[in-house]
This record gives sequence, structure tokens and C-alpha cells, in this order.
Amino acid sequence: MASGGRTRILILGGGFGGVYTAMELERLFKKDPSVEIGLVSKDNYLVFQPMLPEVISGSIGILDVITPIRRLCPRTNLYTRTVESIDVKNKVVTMSSGFRPRPYVLEYDHLVIGLGNQTSFTGQPGLAENALPFKYLGDALVLRNHLIHALEEADIEREAEVRRALLTFVVAGGGFSGVEAIAELNDFVREASHHFRNIDRNEIKTVLLHAGDVILPELPKTLAEFAQNLLRKRGVDIRLNTRLAGATAETALLAGGERIPTKTIVSTVPSAPHAIVAALPFKMERGRIVANEFLEVPDFPGHWALGDCAIVPDVTNAGQPCPPTAQHALRQGTRLARNIAATMGRGQKQRFEFKTLGKLAGLGHRSAVAEILGLKLSGVLAWFMWRVIYLMKLPGLDRKIRVATDWFLDLLLPADIVQLKVDRGAGIARQHYEANEVVFREGDKGDRLYVVVNGNVQIVSEKPGQAPVFIAELGAGDCFGEMALVSDQPRNATARTAGAVDVLTVDREAFHQLFAHLPPLRNLFQQLIAQRMKGSNGGDKK
Amino acid sequence: MASGGRTRILILGGGFGGVYTAMELERLFKKDPSVEIGLVSKDNYLVFQPMLPEVISGSIGILDVITPIRRLCPRTNLYTRTVESIDVKNKVVTMSSGFRPRPYVLEYDHLVIGLGNQTSFTGQPGLAENALPFKYLGDALVLRNHLIHALEEADIEREAEVRRALLTFVVAGGGFSGVEAIAELNDFVREASHHFRNIDRNEIKTVLLHAGDVILPELPKTLAEFAQNLLRKRGVDIRLNTRLAGATAETALLAGGERIPTKTIVSTVPSAPHAIVAALPFKMERGRIVANEFLEVPDFPGHWALGDCAIVPDVTNAGQPCPPTAQHALRQGTRLARNIAATMGRGQKQRFEFKTLGKLAGLGHRSAVAEILGLKLSGVLAWFMWRVIYLMKLPGLDRKIRVATDWFLDLLLPADIVQLKVDRGAGIARQHYEANEVVFREGDKGDRLYVVVNGNVQIVSEKPGQAPVFIAELGAGDCFGEMALVSDQPRNATARTAGAVDVLTVDREAFHQLFAHLPPLRNLFQQLIAQRMKGSNGGDKK
Repeated sequence: MASGGRTRILILGGGFGGVYTAMELERLFKKDPSVEIGLVSKDNYLVFQPMLPEVISGSIGILDVITPIRRLCPRTNLYTRTVESIDVKNKVVTMSSGFRPRPYVLEYDHLVIGLGNQTSFTGQPGLAENALPFKYLGDALVLRNHLIHALEEADIEREAEVRRALLTFVVAGGGFSGVEAIAELNDFVREASHHFRNIDRNEIKTVLLHAGDVILPELPKTLAEFAQNLLRKRGVDIRLNTRLAGATAETALLAGGERIPTKTIVSTVPSAPHAIVAALPFKMERGRIVANEFLEVPDFPGHWALGDCAIVPDVTNAGQPCPPTAQHALRQGTRLARNIAATMGRGQKQRFEFKTLGKLAGLGHRSAVAEILGLKLSGVLAWFMWRVIYLMKLPGLDRKIRVATDWFLDLLLPADIVQLKVDRGAGIARQHYEANEVVFREGDKGDRLYVVVNGNVQIVSEKPGQAPVFIAELGAGDCFGEMALVSDQPRNATARTAGAVDVLTVDREAFHQLFAHLPPLRNLFQQLIAQRMKGSNGGDKK
Repeated sequence: MASGGRTRILILGGGFGGVYTAMELERLFKKDPSVEIGLVSKDNYLVFQPMLPEVISGSIGILDVITPIRRLCPRTNLYTRTVESIDVKNKVVTMSSGFRPRPYVLEYDHLVIGLGNQTSFTGQPGLAENALPFKYLGDALVLRNHLIHALEEADIEREAEVRRALLTFVVAGGGFSGVEAIAELNDFVREASHHFRNIDRNEIKTVLLHAGDVILPELPKTLAEFAQNLLRKRGVDIRLNTRLAGATAETALLAGGERIPTKTIVSTVPSAPHAIVAALPFKMERGRIVANEFLEVPDFPGHWALGDCAIVPDVTNAGQPCPPTAQHALRQGTRLARNIAATMGRGQKQRFEFKTLGKLAGLGHRSAVAEILGLKLSGVLAWFMWRVIYLMKLPGLDRKIRVATDWFLDLLLPADIVQLKVDRGAGIARQHYEANEVVFREGDKGDRLYVVVNGNVQIVSEKPGQAPVFIAELGAGDCFGEMALVSDQPRNATARTAGAVDVLTVDREAFHQLFAHLPPLRNLFQQLIAQRMKGSNGGDKK
């Protein structure tokens, strides 16, 4: 107990595991000023994941699915930061910086690691650039705005092909979160489309991609099939044994090679181990910390792990790992807090023991499937159970009241279609193209500069009524598109990919800022442009 | 009546003026398919400005102060785009592009211009980079998140000076919107601070800067003084005859030279003429279109103007310009629609005639000041009037119900303190410094590269226990800070401004993307770094 007789317990991660650990520690050490509790969380709220899909359709208010952590654990020091490194030897955690770039370090006696997992699109080309993840509250908001944006654009789009792509919505992953997401998405776009006078509702396509034979593999087959039939009846195209292999700005690429033209790809599949957890010197299994049944990290006294970033043996199930659910994480938190107290002489250390109560999946529009204490339910009754159970579990009385009010109003009032745009700022971004895609077309606005990262791009002139003229082929490290940015004229040629291509794009504002204030960069581009002008006069390459 | 007997009426701007024009046109031409109504608005919703300040404190739900335009005018084609240019000779409007960078052009027979004004910080150094505007819904959200972020940081800040700056909140401008903003901000930070266990409430400072002798110059002096005393009693430091002259990331600069250390500056003052409006070939006055009493643009048949971007003579007030209020704009919209109908043979053109009904300013916490039909009200009664009147004026029954519910819940439930972070993306940004400010300190994390735009920056080594060593002075076009980015080490020197300085900053991710994929840029930085390494070994400059 290092710092002057005080015991410093530091919890990493503001999910159910971390927050419930803090809540129980506060209860156990209510009158003990010698115990200091700290919690590091990248957000200052706890997200109630099961209600996240309802944010898409707006049937729950944006702020109502989340609870401020400060209100749940008022005696805990909350650090709204991200964890940058953990030094288990010196018992020190370094966090990201706030308004000023200074390192911020915390020492601990006990460390509780509940960092969960991370979204990762590694190995699937174009997904990081084009797929929308669906894990955090921010993701749900971004998705909602994106859906409304696609409807807005479809309403005024004059090319039928582009309009159909705008009205095609693809969700990858038929597990709980994918099914709940497609259900709410499908309800929302179909209901909202009534407000768009030029949208033909027959053109709307919603697609669920699932790698297995039947969706919701966690549930009994009869329930899964009920869900499958219901979603199909509501217009969802469920593609079984189908995997998302990649994406571009224009298409979803399926594993067999098929391309679905779309501007909306939601991926609920990819969760990778947390990078900082994976780097720890503990015994790991597939990037997760192997904890014992007391939630301790063996051989590292004072270190504890729980939730999705840990493998905790389930003593009710022959020591198999506990499933990664909220109901397990929050009970692990309570147990873990008591076991820490036990090491400080309060009570006995006990094994974590808990049997899954049930599984629920909401299907939108007053329907759900559920297996509760062995009972199988589907339809309206399951939906009602779903609402009652989750409302009870939602932490905080004020949230319960707010969500109940939202649900009540949602039964009476029409769906909301306001699009809350949030500026993405000036930017540098990456983009992925497959073979034979158009990067930009002659006559388009010159809104960004491109740098080839890998692959080859062909620049071609396609004047109407004339045969296309090949101008240049560009490779890694080459720039293109700078001409239209500098001259403020439309694109004077078309850029087309030869094979799969990755590019870096620099938007107009970022380009002009860099161009104006970095003289060496200005010289570089002036030379490049002079060269190309000469080239195009003489009919030369590049 | 160009396109095949159809009359195309195009409205620019989705504020009260534009939306009420569309609503009245729909009513007048309900059964006339030969009239086509189009509305271009950058957002797909109408913001109810008077309720915007309540979004700060969260007493109204984020989405409830806005109404979807599609629901108000279902027969209008809504283009959720920004206007890029107006060609009044050829009667053509060009809009920004959507998912793809293609130009989008609309032709018209009648053009209604209601584009309002724009936020502009020209002439006040550092305001564009550091002041938060307060005009759109997005602004209110950003401000709310910023306030919570400042409280979060203050709660864990170890340096007293930095903590006091984090707890100082400055609003510039004592007109309606500044007063309502400071009232809600003051209530919110003081109430929310109860949830932050390490914040000393005596350290919270809220400041209102006002250029005149008394705030709310639009109201009778007795009411203004009532508001002033009330705000002071609640802890607001009102600085009269004081102007905001500029800002840096660390301070608000007052006109006399005083600096207030703060991380939060809200500016409600600056609205400049809309750039696209100011460029029109019409008769203008201070960037606004001079319209006649029929809301026509003289000498340009088929062109109309209303709202804040127009000067419309107030026939009830000896032809003085109408004040820029919502109550005028929406009535101008209705009149304008009828006058367009008159040019098409329906009824008679009439002058715009309307006498201000009243003026209201909310002061938070169940208080307000109001002058209604000559009656002066203040306190709870004015507050109650405020709520009843605005609830009646809020367009859409569903919004009325939602806001009434919000208000009711707000009386019962505690203030919300969740911070909805929204990624700003990789970026290039500008920053302003005054003389003798620290850009970064030795030992700070190297999180960005700097390019000097103007002014001079000194690089100094300040090892503890040693005299500071001058390393280099940099000027326009010079880079600094690249060393820590490339080596991933903390800053090895301190950068300090000599006089006022503007810089361009490139964050770590943007820098590495550019560095990795633009070979000429990589060469440039490698040379620069090699040079500086040599320099620092030999004790030389730069």
C-alpha cells in the first residue's frame, strides 16, 4: 500500500465490467478514506449497448441510452482519457493528454483491466475507408446521419444507377448486433422514405450478409428461423453463407467476387483484441488475458482482468470461457471488487460463478426473439419482455424515466428525419478502389489531390464524340488531380484504376493550406504542373 | 414560364423566410401541378433559434429544437446542399456536390433569396481558431461538449493556473443571443460541477463582455437592468464597455490589452453578409440586397429577397429597414409567396406590413425579460410567457409535444453531463499566438508539426537547473516540431513566440500519411532533420 498508507485501485475501461467494479468498491469502502478509486474511460458515460440500435431509428433519444459514469460512481476519480501504456513492473499507467500535450501518469496498487476489444478491419481492403462500424454511440449517430444523407441524395439524384446504389443498404454479420442493426435500419429507411417525394419505395434494398447457414447462431434454431422469416417478410434480403470481402466508395465486394453497388455498408463483425492489452506480459489467448476464476491475473499480484478483454473460466460450464456479454461483465465487476476487498482483509475471496439468464434480440416494430431461463419466446410477447427487462437493467432512475417517455412518444409521433451534420474538418484520408473503377471523371469538380499508395492509375481523356486518348499511367508515390485544384477548373481528364489501388487524398482546403505555407511543397507542385502542361501540349505522357 | 408551361420557383435558404415562403406557396398552388417549388437548404431542418441556448444545458433534447423541412413542406423539392453560385442573367443556380463531385445545376423562373448571414471572425486575430460561434445547432452541440470537456479536464488538472483557466468561461456580446447563452452556460456549468468531486465551485468564473453601457440594448433600460442584476446575482461577471479583440488557445484578449486566461470563448457578435449574396449584381447596402416593399429586387424581374440577407423597408416605421428577427422573416415569407402568386394572376401584389409583437430574452432558471405589445415583464411571469409563446410558435405538433415533455422532465430530473465526442478526423489546422506564448514545452508529447505562416518563433532549450540556451529563430515558411514526430520522442526543446504569430499545424496522423506516401516531402524532411541534428551537435542555429 504505497502512497502513505493509501491503497490506490485503478480501473481501466468504462464498460459494464469497469463501472460495476467501481460501484461495488464504493459501496465496500464507503467510509474508508484510505482507499482511492480511479477509473480511466475514453467516454464519460456508460453505453447501454442493447439499446444502441434504437438510436438509428430515433425511437430512443440520443442521450438516453447512455448514463454519466460520474453519477453512477460519485466517489471515483474519473479520468476521461484513453490509456496509452501500462507498465506492470513499475505499476504505472500513462494516459493520453488533454488540452495540452503533456504526459499524464497514474500509479496504482491494484489494476483492474476491463478495456474490451476494438473495431478492426485489417485484412479486408477498403473496409476501414468505407464500412461503418457499429459498436459505440458515435457509430450509431454517424450511421443514422449517413442513412438520412443517402435518402436526401437519392431524392434528387437524376441517374437511375446512382440512385439505386444510394437506396441499397448492406449490413455484414448475422449475430445479435447485426440482426438488431438491420431490423432498425430497415424499419427506419422504409418509414422515413415516405417523407421523400421522389423516392420510389420499390427501389429500396436492404441486405444482410451472414457467413453461416442461419442467422443468430447463439439462439435455438427455431427462434433464429422465426427472426429470419420475419425480417424477410419486412423486405430484408438475407444472404446466407455469404461473406463481405472488401469495399470501395461505390460497392460492397462479396467473397465470391460479386459486387453490390451501394453507398452504405455497416460491419458489425470485426472486433480485434485491444492493442494495449495484447502487448501485456501476461499469459494470453488470442489477444485476451487469461484470468483465473477469481478474476486475478496469475503470477502478477495486484492485477485483475474482466469482461471482453479477459478469458475467465465459467465454473458453471466445465471451465469454458465466459461468453462476452454485458450480464457476465457486470457480475464479474461486482465479484472482482469483493475479491480486491478480500485481499485487504475484508471477507473471503470467491470464485466467479454465474449462469446466463437469457438471450434477447430485438427485431424492431414490436417484435423480438428471446430465450429466458430455458423458455423460448418470439413476437410481441418477446418484444414486451425485451423492453421490460432492459428498462429494469438500464442504470439510473432518470434514464429509466427518459427511455420510458421516449418509447411512449415513439408510439404516437412520426419518425424523425433531421440530419445532424458534424464537420469532419479539413482532411487527409485514404481510399481503396478495385480494378476498373473511376476515381474521377472529366468535367467533375476538382475537390481533392490524390497520391498513389499502391497499384496503378490511368489518366485518360474522354472528350464526347472522340475516341479515348491515353495520357499517362501512374504508380506508387505519384500525384494526380492537382491541376484542377490549382486552376479551379473542372477535371480535364478521367482517372481510372488499372487493378486494385489505394490512394491518399488531400482535400482542397488542406492542399491550399499546405501549398500556400510550405514553400518546398509549392515548388514541387509548380514543377509538376509545368511538366504536365508541357507534356499535354506535346502529347507526351503524365 | 420556361420549361413546358411549368413555372419553377426556387427558394434559397432554409430559415424561417425560405420555409414559410415554401409553405405558403404549397397552400396557394395546392392543386396546380404547373408550379414546381424547390428549396435549397444546407440542413434538412429548420432551427428554432430561440430555443438553441437550452440545448447547451440539455433542458431541451438535441433534436427537439429543429423541425424537418420535408414535413413542413411535403410538396417542395428539397435540395440539402449549399448554394455555390447564382447566375441571375441566365436564371441558373449551381449547388455543391453530394457523394460524387459532380456539378448540380437548377434553372428557375422565380428566385427567392433568403440566405441569411454568415459567421465571420475577420479582423480579430485568433478568433476563427479559438472562439466558438453560436448560431447553428451544430454550434450549440459543440459548445455543450466543450463545456463538459473543460469540466472533465479541470477535475483532474494538477496545476492550479491551468485549472483556473479551464474553469473560466467567456461569452462576447451582450445582445439577445449572448445574454441567453451566458445565462444557460452559467446555470449549466454551476449545476454540472456538483458531479465533479475535485472541482472547487468558487473557482468557476463566467464572464460576459459587452461593448455598450448596458446589456440587451434592444430592450427598455429597466428590463435590461433587471437582466443585468439577475445575471450578476447568479455569479456572472458582466464587463461593460469591453470588447473582445482576439484570442489564443490560452487567453481571451480584450481591446485594452488585458488578457483573461481561458479555454472557452463564445462569440455571438460576428455576422457578416453572405458571400454569395454580396457578389450579386443587385443594389446592395452593407452586403444586403435592397428589396422594395413588395420584397422584389428592383430591375430584376423574377428575383425576390427576404430575411436577414435583405433590406426591406418597414412601412410601419417610416421606411426604416425591418429588424432581422424571425417574426419578420416568416411573415415576409408568407407575403412574398402571395406576391409571386399575384404576378401569375392570383390576387393583388401587396406591401409587406408588420409591427413587431414583442421581444423576449430567456435568462435561464425560470426567469426572463419581455416586452410584449408595449407591456414590460420580468421574472417568473416573463419566463412562463416565454415558454408558452415559443411553444405555440414552434412549428409542428410533434415538436410541441416533445419540447413540452422535455421541459416537464427537466423540472424533475438532474442535468445531463454526458459528452458526445465527435471525431474531427486527421487534420491540418491554423493557430494564432500572441507575444511570448509557449507553443510547446520541452518534454511535451510531439503530437504535431508546425509551419510558420507569419511572425517569429524562438526555439530554446530549457534543461532544469541550467540557463536557457537559444537554439534558433524561425520565420514564415519554416517548419518546426518535426523531430519529435519522426522520432516518437518527447519535445527536445521549447518553442516560444517572439511577437504575434500564426502557424499551420499538421497532426501526427496527417504528417505520417503525407510523409510515407509523398516521396518529395519525405526527402525534404529528411534533409531538414539531418541539418538540424548536425546543427544541434555543433551548437549551431536551427
